[in-house]
Amino acid sequence: MAVPSPGYSITLRVETAVGRTSTSDLVAAAAATGAAITALDVVESTPHTVMIDVSADTRDVAHADEVAAALGALDGVEVHKVSDRTFLLHLGGKLESTPKVPLRNRDDLSRAYTPGVARVCMAIAENKADARRLTIKRNTVAVVTDGTAVLGLGDIGPEAAMPVMEGKAVLFKQFAGVDAWPVALDTKDTEEIISICKAIAPAYGGINLEDISAPRCFEIEARLREELDIPVFHDDQHGTGIVTLAALKNALKVVGRKLEDQRIVVSGVGAAGNAIIRLLQVAGAKNIIACGRNGAIGPNSTVDTEHKVWLQANTNPEGFEGTLKEAVAGSDVFIGVSAPNVLDGADIQAMNKDALVFAMANPDPEVDPAEALKYAAVVATGRSDYPNQINNVLAFPGIFRGLLDAEATDIDENIMVAAADAIASCIPEEELHPGYVVPSVFDPEVATKVAAAVAAVSS
Amino acid sequence: MAVPSPGYSITLRVETAVGRTSTSDLVAAAAATGAAITALDVVESTPHTVMIDVSADTRDVAHADEVAAALGALDGVEVHKVSDRTFLLHLGGKLESTPKVPLRNRDDLSRAYTPGVARVCMAIAENKADARRLTIKRNTVAVVTDGTAVLGLGDIGPEAAMPVMEGKAVLFKQFAGVDAWPVALDTKDTEEIISICKAIAPAYGGINLEDISAPRCFEIEARLREELDIPVFHDDQHGTGIVTLAALKNALKVVGRKLEDQRIVVSGVGAAGNAIIRLLQVAGAKNIIACGRNGAIGPNSTVDTEHKVWLQANTNPEGFEGTLKEAVAGSDVFIGVSAPNVLDGADIQAMNKDALVFAMANPDPEVDPAEALKYAAVVATGRSDYPNQINNVLAFPGIFRGLLDAEATDIDENIMVAAADAIASCIPEEELHPGYVVPSVFDPEVATKVAAAVAAVSS
Repeated sequence: MAVPSPGYSITLRVETAVGRTSTSDLVAAAAATGAAITALDVVESTPHTVMIDVSADTRDVAHADEVAAALGALDGVEVHKVSDRTFLLHLGGKLESTPKVPLRNRDDLSRAYTPGVARVCMAIAENKADARRLTIKRNTVAVVTDGTAVLGLGDIGPEAAMPVMEGKAVLFKQFAGVDAWPVALDTKDTEEIISICKAIAPAYGGINLEDISAPRCFEIEARLREELDIPVFHDDQHGTGIVTLAALKNALKVVGRKLEDQRIVVSGVGAAGNAIIRLLQVAGAKNIIACGRNGAIGPNSTVDTEHKVWLQANTNPEGFEGTLKEAVAGSDVFIGVSAPNVLDGADIQAMNKDALVFAMANPDPEVDPAEALKYAAVVATGRSDYPNQINNVLAFPGIFRGLLDAEATDIDENIMVAAADAIASCIPEEELHPGYVVPSVFDPEVATKVAAAVAAVSS
Repeated sequence: MAVPSPGYSITLRVETAVGRTSTSDLVAAAAATGAAITALDVVESTPHTVMIDVSADTRDVAHADEVAAALGALDGVEVHKVSDRTFLLHLGGKLESTPKVPLRNRDDLSRAYTPGVARVCMAIAENKADARRLTIKRNTVAVVTDGTAVLGLGDIGPEAAMPVMEGKAVLFKQFAGVDAWPVALDTKDTEEIISICKAIAPAYGGINLEDISAPRCFEIEARLREELDIPVFHDDQHGTGIVTLAALKNALKVVGRKLEDQRIVVSGVGAAGNAIIRLLQVAGAKNIIACGRNGAIGPNSTVDTEHKVWLQANTNPEGFEGTLKEAVAGSDVFIGVSAPNVLDGADIQAMNKDALVFAMANPDPEVDPAEALKYAAVVATGRSDYPNQINNVLAFPGIFRGLLDAEATDIDENIMVAAADAIASCIPEEELHPGYVVPSVFDPEVATKVAAAVAAVSS
């Protein structure tokens, strides 16, 4: 069962009769439902009643309702208002556009706007490269989505995708000082998305594609990388690939093995799965078996997309055929970016000794992490409530910081491997252990190290 | 001849031999070229030499070079570096994307991003109208250009247009708290611009079209107003129209006449001229003569665009035919949004008594304002160095503030007239005089009054 999370934190304004146990009764009633009380604030007190703001983390919306009902059922207690602190945080959006120059008087206006601005415009008209010096292009990235594959929520549309894109922009700024702006597109047409990205590119030093469903995301990313002179990064592919590679490199150090010797099973052949496989190969992996819904992609599989054709030709050197479970048996590494609970403890037990298990399906992993840990040497997930969270925020802020600093026009797999090495290096070898192969998302060193590594290898 | 302007201010780092008159010699040499010294800062002093930063406003780039040469020609003086303060101000761009929520720890991250954000996304997916509550749409406007008609510079392209669009965004925030973001498009295709604006609309509460050349701007604006559910405003048309109407209303109060009785000549039938004419008519003007390059548009004129057909059908009730100069003779009001020096003092003398002359061509007006003032009752221009500057910044920030506050889905001429009335009302009647019919762009009341008036009449 899920545990209470600050993502579902509520504040209940409660009026209660004054009494010796009235406050402790509230706490007891909330706790009895499984809620985690985080604060009690008295708002108002009279001789007979007291008004208290009770803040608590809950498991989900139903649990929040349950807490309100439990308090309301107490004698002499009235629940006035339940505020959802997550919604409060999002009210009015999470991002603003802020001037970097003051306009206090006519002189400021003359320089920042007309007539002075005309000279700056003409300098750029005469030398387009000056846009990186004299406009926001120097430090700004577009976060582009069509809202078709948002988190685990699917095709919820561009308006509903905005809170995620805004959050992404907040992370860019917070972790790496990159100005990012959400571009949520009301179209799912591949060609139109490509042409829009090309059209808006003059203002941006890079494009971060986000939550665009496969297989369209492959075509969009490949074409934009070809046709634009700014780097294009698809976070669901490359971000996940980079952090996975970083974690795997550290996990291999923990067990004292080499990437090129591993038999690796990847469950999931969507955006993330494809990118992980390609990146692992660039980094040296030789034996990867890709599994889709119908099991391993082998020499006799039906391959109906360009990407599956590529997988068939470039993975599975043993020509293995069979189900995911059969593929996992006797493997060294399992990497899941697919669906919840496709494996159980017995499957992990059937892997080779000191297996590495990265079960990253969200919110529920491919295998129960507690079960997996009984048999595997290292377990990682996409969740923040288990050790070793594979979180893209370790990659994208620093990567774009480095690309912008280097005025990079492109990004390739070598840059991504350099980023993965930088992330891995944030944990000193002597501190590595099975529960600590991925640095904390709040480690301030990560973005700096990634940026430096990316800038060093970028052109 | 142009006067020195802070738009062309420079700072020269100058090393000079220590002497009784060395500093005053610098000032005298710079002043002899016509530069306006604004500051002298001693940076470093030794027994024999002193290093001074000389800041001065100049007329233009050539004048700045002249100042540097004049100082360098002095005995014992060496000019080390000339910095252009306008360029310094634009370095790295003028805008940034700033988080409104902190991400200090895991709890913040859980609410602003995953997993908490998923609930906010789903709320919007279930009710799209919630985007105005829970995303930046509530307070954000796109400033869209294709870079084809930037200031008086023409088609300089989207990269070179960015400094103006960023400046516009700065003005939006500074004057009305509106978050604006530049969208500079690398396409001139009318249909593509329309489809891009429609595609990016989910993130925005309004679209401000900017510096798009006529006649494409008419089609783009008309189609977007039709097809989008957020207000679309073309600043070059409507902004100019609104401020012109505001100034005209006040000027008419100064001379004690009524709009419906005026014979008005408008020189220029591009974006601004068209919008001014339509807005004046909505406000009550009955007798407008539109003049293009070939003189008045009359019953027998060749009309080759949709807009000229409209002008032929809806203006010039007298059926006047002739040149601009002939049209101006015997008129009450001249409004110029065309080209420099198309009229002279004699033309203004030939107007009716107490003529009103708005000569807004930039940087050089249709008639020398000093000449015009010999014969006209009120003269206004687009320049900041004469009284009565017709400046769009009086309109667009407050208008979008009002539209966003009202969650408006559209903007029409009635809203624009209300905005013009609000701008005009910022000068109390007893303070009106020929040199003060337009409020200052730094009058903090303007945007507030405009916003309130716009919100009151918006749906």
